[in-house]
Amino acid sequence: MQIILDVMGGDQIPGNLVEGGVRAAREFDLDIVLVGDPPVIRSSLKKLGAIEGSQVSILASESVIRMDEPPVQAVRKKRDSSLVRGLHALREQDGDALVSPGNTGAVVAGSLFTLGRIPGIPRPGLVANLPSVDGADFAMVDVGATVDCMPEHLVHFASMGSIYARDVMGISRPRVGLLSIGEEKGKGNRLASKTFSLLQDAPITFAGNVESHQLLNGRPVDVVVCDGFVGNVFLKATEGAVGAIVSLLKAGLSSSRRAKLGAMMLRPILRHLVGKLDYHSRGGAPLLGVNGVVIVAHGRSDADAIVGAIDVARRAVSSGMRKHLAESVEGKAT
Amino acid sequence: MQIILDVMGGDQIPGNLVEGGVRAAREFDLDIVLVGDPPVIRSSLKKLGAIEGSQVSILASESVIRMDEPPVQAVRKKRDSSLVRGLHALREQDGDALVSPGNTGAVVAGSLFTLGRIPGIPRPGLVANLPSVDGADFAMVDVGATVDCMPEHLVHFASMGSIYARDVMGISRPRVGLLSIGEEKGKGNRLASKTFSLLQDAPITFAGNVESHQLLNGRPVDVVVCDGFVGNVFLKATEGAVGAIVSLLKAGLSSSRRAKLGAMMLRPILRHLVGKLDYHSRGGAPLLGVNGVVIVAHGRSDADAIVGAIDVARRAVSSGMRKHLAESVEGKAT
Repeated sequence: MQIILDVMGGDQIPGNLVEGGVRAAREFDLDIVLVGDPPVIRSSLKKLGAIEGSQVSILASESVIRMDEPPVQAVRKKRDSSLVRGLHALREQDGDALVSPGNTGAVVAGSLFTLGRIPGIPRPGLVANLPSVDGADFAMVDVGATVDCMPEHLVHFASMGSIYARDVMGISRPRVGLLSIGEEKGKGNRLASKTFSLLQDAPITFAGNVESHQLLNGRPVDVVVCDGFVGNVFLKATEGAVGAIVSLLKAGLSSSRRAKLGAMMLRPILRHLVGKLDYHSRGGAPLLGVNGVVIVAHGRSDADAIVGAIDVARRAVSSGMRKHLAESVEGKAT
Repeated sequence: MQIILDVMGGDQIPGNLVEGGVRAAREFDLDIVLVGDPPVIRSSLKKLGAIEGSQVSILASESVIRMDEPPVQAVRKKRDSSLVRGLHALREQDGDALVSPGNTGAVVAGSLFTLGRIPGIPRPGLVANLPSVDGADFAMVDVGATVDCMPEHLVHFASMGSIYARDVMGISRPRVGLLSIGEEKGKGNRLASKTFSLLQDAPITFAGNVESHQLLNGRPVDVVVCDGFVGNVFLKATEGAVGAIVSLLKAGLSSSRRAKLGAMMLRPILRHLVGKLDYHSRGGAPLLGVNGVVIVAHGRSDADAIVGAIDVARRAVSSGMRKHLAESVEGKAT
């Protein structure tokens, strides 16, 4: 198996990404193609004591798409960027999957331009793996690839999310919930209400509406579907609440000697807790529905997160996820 | 000033609500009309050592709209409920404002049926007062009254939210942000993108897009506008994240003697912290755009929360908020 890794994308320090790639190559015994500026990559490899060879190779690119660039224009203009070079390599089957920690919008636009959609899937969906207090993750589709959805798009997200949960998360009969406000059928907005009826007839295990306060706590389902705007708001609201609590704790902890002492004793628990809820540290977000295995790593990924994202890519490739996604819309058994 | 308080609504223990009403009457020197089952109210008053009189009076109702009842049907059928009786009293000017801790959907539907809209305001918006780590609150409109919005509805929310921030929160020139994903103009879904252009021309102080992870932390604006579905998802996502952290802390705290000791020392800080982020404890949510001052208190309100909700009602009445809302759509200066 060969994984293409964009080591220039986003706000990253290429050294961290190269390190993640090299570690994943060793750990999972696979080949890595590092896409980026060759001198930068070589210097990182040298620092790591790793050598360029068949397991770790370099694909040269000349430019970088920054995090704040308008996605569509950037992808059209910067054909020599690490992202677009990597996507072309994936299309030409010079690799089985692409991992990029870059501008999410650019990864979505670039994937649609370069790879296209899987025939029969109208819109791509980005998956976030989210934690819950019981320790098990759940998947949310879509968290930002398709921000204006029709009910049938959400039905595709439900079907693709189920295949992802089976192939990558190893859940044999994933339960799917529809994110809404109110639990009863018909509660929510027009999109949720129409989608509910369609999901009842879809070949998935539909568990009804779920509300956003339940997800991290009860983990009522394995897969949650929503439009990409709502999913992105949910994701960032959770991130914001965790961040707010951490900064309140930090401020409170420095307020008295007693609190400082308490904090010292609690530090391992607090660290574990924040780590548990920090979805940044948890691998990558697969972009489902495009014609290739594409994983978006978070813009602030460190080497650990890159190893996690490559692990997701590896599972998706070895399980045949793309084939299962294509078969699901052909009406074949998956 | 006379405030009508529905003491039967929702999951409440009437005694807590009666206590909140009696305390608010004393604290703010106003009259309270308690709507509910007279024997239940009288027994609560007796326990509190309070007496029925001109400052605390009773309006009898026979039934209750439960939290899980379908709002529209419940309001139509249960004309003798505490909510509907209270709304009729408000319409007949037997009070200046209504506070109900009941079924939010029923309060919205009942207010629209009984009071109607302020002419020129197409849809009502429910306001949540939310906390931020810097201690100051911000207001979000809408958090669930109107779940399918057109861009012009959001412009009305922005205008109504500005009047609320000025009249009730005491912010002289409130800054308004549009909840979206991505900060630049045009980022987000079609609704956000179209609303952005309209807000640039609206007679408010528009500060551009805000993202959900910024709100509790940086508090970039005083008022955030979004459609009611997205606002409700945001609210409950925040609630869920806070709840998840509290339960992880509780689990972690019982794990070792060292952690227990640390927790004991940190307890005051943790309690303060959770209180700070717990919007349940913060007064009530005004329903803007209906023809009367209606405040929804949270379904799990205790006496303190009821005092807070009555405080919001009192400020809205004494500032002339309803008149300002009506004037704003007549094109008059507010």
